[in-house]
Amino acid sequence: MSGHILALSGGVGGAKLAAGLCAVLPPEQLTIAVNTGDDFEHLGLTICPDLDSVTYALAGLNDTVRGWGVADETWQAMAMLSRLGGPDWFNLGDRDLGLHLTRAMHLRAGESLSEITARLTVQLGIAHRVVPMSDDPVRTQVETDAGWLDFQHYFVREQCRPEVRGVRFAGADKARISPGFIQALSRPDLAAIVICPSNPWLSVDPILALPGLRQQIAALTVPVIAVSPLVGGTALKGPLAKLMAELGQPVTNLALAAHYGDLLDHLVIDETDAADAEALRDTGLCATVTQTVMRSSADRERLASEVLALAGKVD
Amino acid sequence: MSGHILALSGGVGGAKLAAGLCAVLPPEQLTIAVNTGDDFEHLGLTICPDLDSVTYALAGLNDTVRGWGVADETWQAMAMLSRLGGPDWFNLGDRDLGLHLTRAMHLRAGESLSEITARLTVQLGIAHRVVPMSDDPVRTQVETDAGWLDFQHYFVREQCRPEVRGVRFAGADKARISPGFIQALSRPDLAAIVICPSNPWLSVDPILALPGLRQQIAALTVPVIAVSPLVGGTALKGPLAKLMAELGQPVTNLALAAHYGDLLDHLVIDETDAADAEALRDTGLCATVTQTVMRSSADRERLASEVLALAGKVD
Repeated sequence: MSGHILALSGGVGGAKLAAGLCAVLPPEQLTIAVNTGDDFEHLGLTICPDLDSVTYALAGLNDTVRGWGVADETWQAMAMLSRLGGPDWFNLGDRDLGLHLTRAMHLRAGESLSEITARLTVQLGIAHRVVPMSDDPVRTQVETDAGWLDFQHYFVREQCRPEVRGVRFAGADKARISPGFIQALSRPDLAAIVICPSNPWLSVDPILALPGLRQQIAALTVPVIAVSPLVGGTALKGPLAKLMAELGQPVTNLALAAHYGDLLDHLVIDETDAADAEALRDTGLCATVTQTVMRSSADRERLASEVLALAGKVD
Repeated sequence: MSGHILALSGGVGGAKLAAGLCAVLPPEQLTIAVNTGDDFEHLGLTICPDLDSVTYALAGLNDTVRGWGVADETWQAMAMLSRLGGPDWFNLGDRDLGLHLTRAMHLRAGESLSEITARLTVQLGIAHRVVPMSDDPVRTQVETDAGWLDFQHYFVREQCRPEVRGVRFAGADKARISPGFIQALSRPDLAAIVICPSNPWLSVDPILALPGLRQQIAALTVPVIAVSPLVGGTALKGPLAKLMAELGQPVTNLALAAHYGDLLDHLVIDETDAADAEALRDTGLCATVTQTVMRSSADRERLASEVLALAGKVD
């Protein structure tokens, strides 16, 4: 595999493949552009859940048992805040808070999210390039019976209980693609775009909503390869299956591929959904069946290698 | 003992006597006005070390072994911040951070420091009234060879190493005495003002620097009783002895009393400094010798009771 890979990632699921790609590609061959639509302002801090999930995963600091946040985490600050009557619906661990406080300090000093992300990843020993999709605020919101909800209010505070009728990305119309993301898109040696197994509606769409991005990707001749977050006709984790149903979609890889539309060249689906492959190919897509569930670093590296092998074959 | 007691307190040493006063007085008979000259802005938070020392002591949350901060504290946020290259010279524990985040949230919402202090102390089950000296920012600074240093830079970052030539209280000229402090000063049943054993130059002077306060106290007929922070001709803790010497003062109770001047009616000194009593009385002051070192709650309550007994006797 030669050439540069641009990976688009949301949080936890995407971060696993991103970690796999880091394990099999040298730093100069990979850029990971991360969704910032989940970001929000809380307790005076700018929390960037997807950037942090990717960062913690690449630094080997992620908690693999809990499935999110930092390993060896404690919750003392939250316990005190809760005791003092503060808002405790968004659980911020103590180690995690150390990162948020540091990021907030640099944001106040006028640094861009890109600069801060570069700084924090370097400090944690991450050699690969992690970039936010944009340095401008984009905020995912979902429409429910109670009106539009900010993403974390829906996702964490309401535990994804409200029925979702629509999704929007406030600020996306004016947000500029981040410098590192543009740079990766413009590389003459760009070999493929990999869409990590993140929620297309909630984690990848905010990236694709950036002005001009879809057109830029469409104008490229490199293959766009997505790894489906569906496993056995449902989502391993998170609200994807519920959301697809609420949005009137069948919970299938076909619906997922249709959502990406022309953008997509290749969909990698889980072996438990092997039956979908034929129908996908009928739509003109390449479809590859493999084990997409990543439980170990070996799983992540194998899937990353398989995706990279496809990058050479597609188109 | 009837009537209301107004205690003026700095941090750790003052907080011990404040805790003793709370143990022996019902809530309606005590107001504790706390120095805010040590407050500073750090990591986007407003840290109020003396208010917090008093709060933690009254809530029984103070760490009695370390001598400052919260008991059962952890330092995970600081460790992460340090790893990320953030400023780690001011050690903020995780539990402590929970309080700072809560205070910062209420400050951003436009609440005054008085309102927030009332809220936080109530949440921690403190029935007695703790008020900041002012809701307006006053910032203690010390003059050194390197110019004027913010108090925490001198006290924590530089560990009190620089030689101090002068002390000033930036903002004090425009700061208003807080509503709860004024209220206590104006009570018809005010029986005494107790200056807790805090550093006169660094912890009590910022309070006395508030416009009109010295005059208000001088106009009262109630006794002003200070407990000396000197023990055996030096300070138990902190830079008091070093500072007195640097400011050209003998490190004695006489110099300390002279610094308070006419304001003071009574100085309570430690038994190890009993020899000072005669000279103090020669200046026209009342002087009481007792054990001022507070190692246990029994010590704190005994000293508080002794001070209150004097309140009835003086004048």
